[in-house]
Formats: sequence, structure tokens, C-alpha cells
Amino acid sequence: MHDRTSQTPHLSDAERIDHLRLIRSDNVGPRTFYSLLDHFGDARTALERLPHLAQRGGAPRSGRICSEEEARAELAAAKQIGVALVAPGEAAYPPRLATLDDAPPLLAVRGAPEALMRPMIAIVGSRNASGAGLKFAGQLARDLGEAGFVVISGLARGIDQTAHRATIASGTVAALAGGHDRIYPPEHEDLLAALLDHGGAISEMPLGHAPRARDFPRRNRLISGASLGVVVVEAAHRSGSLITARMAAEQGREVFAVPGSPLDPRAAGTNDLIKQGAALVTAASDVINAIQPILERPIMIEAREADDEPLDFNADPGERERIVALLGPSPVSLDDLIRMSGASPATVRTVLLELELAGRLERHGGGLVSLT
Amino acid sequence: MHDRTSQTPHLSDAERIDHLRLIRSDNVGPRTFYSLLDHFGDARTALERLPHLAQRGGAPRSGRICSEEEARAELAAAKQIGVALVAPGEAAYPPRLATLDDAPPLLAVRGAPEALMRPMIAIVGSRNASGAGLKFAGQLARDLGEAGFVVISGLARGIDQTAHRATIASGTVAALAGGHDRIYPPEHEDLLAALLDHGGAISEMPLGHAPRARDFPRRNRLISGASLGVVVVEAAHRSGSLITARMAAEQGREVFAVPGSPLDPRAAGTNDLIKQGAALVTAASDVINAIQPILERPIMIEAREADDEPLDFNADPGERERIVALLGPSPVSLDDLIRMSGASPATVRTVLLELELAGRLERHGGGLVSLT
Repeated sequence: MHDRTSQTPHLSDAERIDHLRLIRSDNVGPRTFYSLLDHFGDARTALERLPHLAQRGGAPRSGRICSEEEARAELAAAKQIGVALVAPGEAAYPPRLATLDDAPPLLAVRGAPEALMRPMIAIVGSRNASGAGLKFAGQLARDLGEAGFVVISGLARGIDQTAHRATIASGTVAALAGGHDRIYPPEHEDLLAALLDHGGAISEMPLGHAPRARDFPRRNRLISGASLGVVVVEAAHRSGSLITARMAAEQGREVFAVPGSPLDPRAAGTNDLIKQGAALVTAASDVINAIQPILERPIMIEAREADDEPLDFNADPGERERIVALLGPSPVSLDDLIRMSGASPATVRTVLLELELAGRLERHGGGLVSLT
Repeated sequence: MHDRTSQTPHLSDAERIDHLRLIRSDNVGPRTFYSLLDHFGDARTALERLPHLAQRGGAPRSGRICSEEEARAELAAAKQIGVALVAPGEAAYPPRLATLDDAPPLLAVRGAPEALMRPMIAIVGSRNASGAGLKFAGQLARDLGEAGFVVISGLARGIDQTAHRATIASGTVAALAGGHDRIYPPEHEDLLAALLDHGGAISEMPLGHAPRARDFPRRNRLISGASLGVVVVEAAHRSGSLITARMAAEQGREVFAVPGSPLDPRAAGTNDLIKQGAALVTAASDVINAIQPILERPIMIEAREADDEPLDFNADPGERERIVALLGPSPVSLDDLIRMSGASPATVRTVLLELELAGRLERHGGGLVSLT
């Protein structure tokens, strides 16, 4: 596959159109995008094959394929409001975000490109934070900014907003759940405008996309993925910030949590994180000291060659049937599917890809899949 | 040496007098007590040798030796107010306390003997605790009491007092820094009286001994040593509760800490403890789950035979001079003294013992010694 961290292989204009068409087509997520690119060599060829593959996957009707006109229109509209669509490895694409297996193939970025390339620390927490929580978040963000880190967060009310505001001058990045023209919450449009001078905003969604509930967890993986570590300031049980912390752990990022009284429900989530192994934070130095050794290592992307996970479109009908029969609404792992079906890994991957393109497959964390 | 955990070998009346005389004599601490008992076989013989040993250690004048009359008077006065002087292994001597290298050779106990033998958890914390800290300490103590644990603490204002009060019915033990007739703070005499029905009080100090500042850290080792684990509820930087936590760690006891906001100075010490590896506590179950596996193991005292650390009173004058010359006001380890002097371990131990009996040696944690 393409080297996604070198910053050298820029896409040509035509490639950028094709990449955008592929990732904007129905049922194509980042992992499927990279699989198709690996197998077919370029996005144009993959686009031509999409209807056939979806049909093999049992699509009741063909999924929508993003047309060249739509892609051109999106690029033009983006340019109009100062948004660029950049691929992993290109300037303004946060380098650590590019190391994710499911890094957005094209990221819509806005603001100061330099800020988007600097080391980032995420600060997240409750929307209805306490006064003490807000005060601490502001101080922590300021101190991290002074130490040279860009603070990334989700532009939400409460902790997010406070972390952004405290770092407008030193550099802060907002990761959006919707398109760049659909800011949520709307009252933070001024905050976003103010932070763009020395910071930036990122989104993997097209312009015009209003964020839905399910877009926020997906967005949270950008916050954790772009950062060296995530600091959770105040979080109740089962709050969104804990999803970001879980993603950070899965992505191999450091997880930090700010403690609080056991009698304060807004500290229940952060205290739990510490019980589970997150580092306790009472000052920016706790974060900086833990991050420093990682900062000094080069950004590594796990060696993943084009033929690491090849596809094989020559499955016989019996194999395909056996694999589909093993699937149901309960998530099952790729390894189990390979073992139980007796089919080759390449065949299983290919059948799953086709099911996904047909809109019939759901991918969960940890390599689990289920039928929708 | 005597088995200090079996509960069977009770002292005879005469032995109890001799043991009390030895531990109440000048410059005889628990470790020296056990060394002398091991070497000379009984306390009576050790008492006879004390003046000679102190003289060899360079005592400017002979230290005070507790007379038989004094010892008898202390035992009688203790009995008068319901205090018994018990040796490790005897009933009412907390079993885990008996496993310490520096377990009090005779412990002055009062209250319900059964309570003193049950598994204990220590709860300690600030004297000027917050309302939230006090509320949490009370709830935690109650829950641990209901789970069958005796709560041990230091009878101080604030957290200690709250933990005791919450467990008067289920059983609580106060470890005193002074004698049983010198309760500190005096306004807690009523609390002490109330807890004796189902709990107890322990002290290693003679009756009439008013607690001095340096007695509190020494007392703190009884709190941690008698318990399976120590929970620190609220503690500022450099507070006495942190000394108890450090002693608990040195004694191999579990250390628990209750988190708090980084903006609350009363949580600075507990947050630091968690950073250093203490288990974070937000509920009694956090303590109970960690303690349960230890509770199921038998109480073990490290195998230490009478000839494990023998003494040797036949050092030649040159060896003695070399050892004393190596000592100064800076603490040095026993191992370094052995290596640098070229003398045998038994000889070095003996010279140190004599210096100690002469009032010239100070023992620090971790086997370090210095000249006073």
C-alpha cells in the first residue's frame, strides 16, 4: 500500500478526485478503501469494480457511487471556505493520525497547516463540568501549550471548550463530527473561527453533513488517533469521553485521567480509568514526563505491505456459502471465521469485503464482524 | 528466637517481669530486645549483661535499667485500669503486628481481646479533613465493619475520629502514641471509652508516658503493622498519614488512597500515593477485593532462627576501632560496614548493639545506622 507517513507522495489532482469518489461511495469505509486500493492498485479501477463486488455480496440494489462531478463540486466548495482535502502523508495531515489502520483516506483540514503537524495532546471531558474541572482543564491546557504541544479536543461545551479557549494563542485543533460548514454546537462557531489562526479543524465528513449521534464516537477516534495521549478531565460513568479513552488505549495512545472525590459523580469515570491503569494527572508535568520518551521516537507505522492481507476473488460458491452461514447478528472474529469455514484468509477477507460493499456487514472493534 | 505467632508459649509471671524490665531499660528498642534475647537465651541474663555491654559501647555513664520494683508497679497499675501487657503470640496481641521485626516485645492492650485478634484495616487521614472526606471515611469504615473487618486508626481529630465512631458497634482499635492513661487528644477520652466494648486500644508506651511529637511516627508503624492494609482518605503533602502509608509499604502491607481534585490541597498526598502505585479507592469493595486473597493465606513470619543473626562478643580491639571509625552522622548500611571493615557480620552487629546500648547509635529505615 501507499506509504502513509512520508509526506512525499502527494496525490495528483486526478488521483485526489478518484480517492474522494471512492471514500464517498456507499459502504466504503477507510479499511475497505485501503483494501481495494491495495488489491486494484488505484482508486479508479476499484471504482469500476464496486458495483460487481457489491452484487456478489448480495446487495439488493446497487449502492450509490460518488460521481466525478460530485467529487469536483466538493473539492471546489471546500476550497471556497479554506478547507483542503489531504491524504495521509501530505502536509497538514496530522502525522500520528496517518498511522491508524482506519486513518481517513482524505481528511478535510482547515487552519494553520503547521499546527496540524505538531505533537498533539487531547483534552476531553464532561459537557456539564464543575467549576473546579473547568479551572483545572484551562490550566492544564495552558501549561501543555506553553510546553509546545497542540491541544486537540472536540469543540463541545464544558471541558472541550475550555481547553480550546486556553490554547487559542499556542495552537489548538478541533475535530468535528460533521462537515466543516455544520459546526456543532452552533454557538461555538466564533470559537472555531478564533482558533484557526494558530490552530486548525479536521473532519472526515463531507461538507453539508450534519453530525448524527453515531458520528461522535467515530470522530472521537480522530481525537485520540491524532494525539500522543488523551487526558480525561471529568467524566461520569458511560460518558463519551470514556469512549475516546478506550479508543486511545486500542490505538496505543497514552491515557491520562484527572482524579476526583468518590462522592463526585463527575469523577466516577476518571477514577475508574485510573483503576484500570490510566496515569493519574494533577499537573501538566505528569503528562509531559510520560509523553517525552514517546516524542523522541520516530513516528512508526506498522509495516504493512500490499500483499500482507491480499484478497482472493476466486472463492468457490460452496466456500462463500459456508462463510456467510457462519455470520449472524452476533459479532464473530475473522480468525474464527477462517478456522470454522476452512477457507483461506484471503477468501474470507474478500467475502467480508463484498458483504460490506453490499451494506450487509458491520465491523466492530477488535476485528469482529456481524451481519446487519 | 521465640516463635512470635503461635499464641501458645505464654510468658510466666517472672518472665513477663524480666521482659518488661528489658524493654523499659534505656536504649533497648524492640530489635535490640530480640537480639539480646536470642543471644543470651533469656531476659534475666541479658539484663545482667546490659551495663557491661553499654560500657563497651562507650557509654559516658551507665544507662538506666528498669528495676524489678518498677516493672511490678507498672503491671499492677496497668491491671488496675484493665490494661494487660501481652507478648507476641499471646491472646489479644494483634497477630499481624507480631510478624514485624520490631514488634513491641510487650504490648499494652485494653478492650475486647477478640477484636484485637480479628483482621484489621487501617483508615487514616487529615485532622482538618473536608466534609466530603469525613463523609466518605465514615461510609468506608461502616462498610468495612459490616464486611467483618476491625478498623484501626490513631484516635486523632478528623478522619481517624470519624472512622472510629462509625465502627464502635462492629469493632475498632485505637493505637495510642502515649500511655493508656495519657489519651491524646484529651477530648477523645469519651470516644475511647465507647469503643472499648467491641474494640480495643493498644500502646507500647508505659503508663504515665505523655506522647511527644516523635512518638507519633513510631505509633504509626503499629497502625500499619497490625493491619492488612492502610487506606489514606485525605492527606496533604508531607502529612503524618503519608508516614503511615510509607511504613505500610515497607512492612509489605497494602496501601490504598482515596483520590481528590488536583485543586484540593487535602488530596495532594493521596493523589501522589496513587501515582506511586497505591490502589485507588472509591468504595469499600476496592479494599475488600484486594485484601481477600491475602486474608486467605496463613499469617507468615519470615523464618528467622536464633542463629540467623548471631552476635559475637570476641571482636579484637582493632576491628572495633575500624567499625566505629566508619560511622558518622551520615547513615550507612550494615552491608557497607561489613564490607568496608572486613569484620564478620556477627562482629559488626555486636559492635552496633553495644553502641546502641551506650546511646550512641541511631537506627534508620532500611538497615541504615548513624552515630548520634
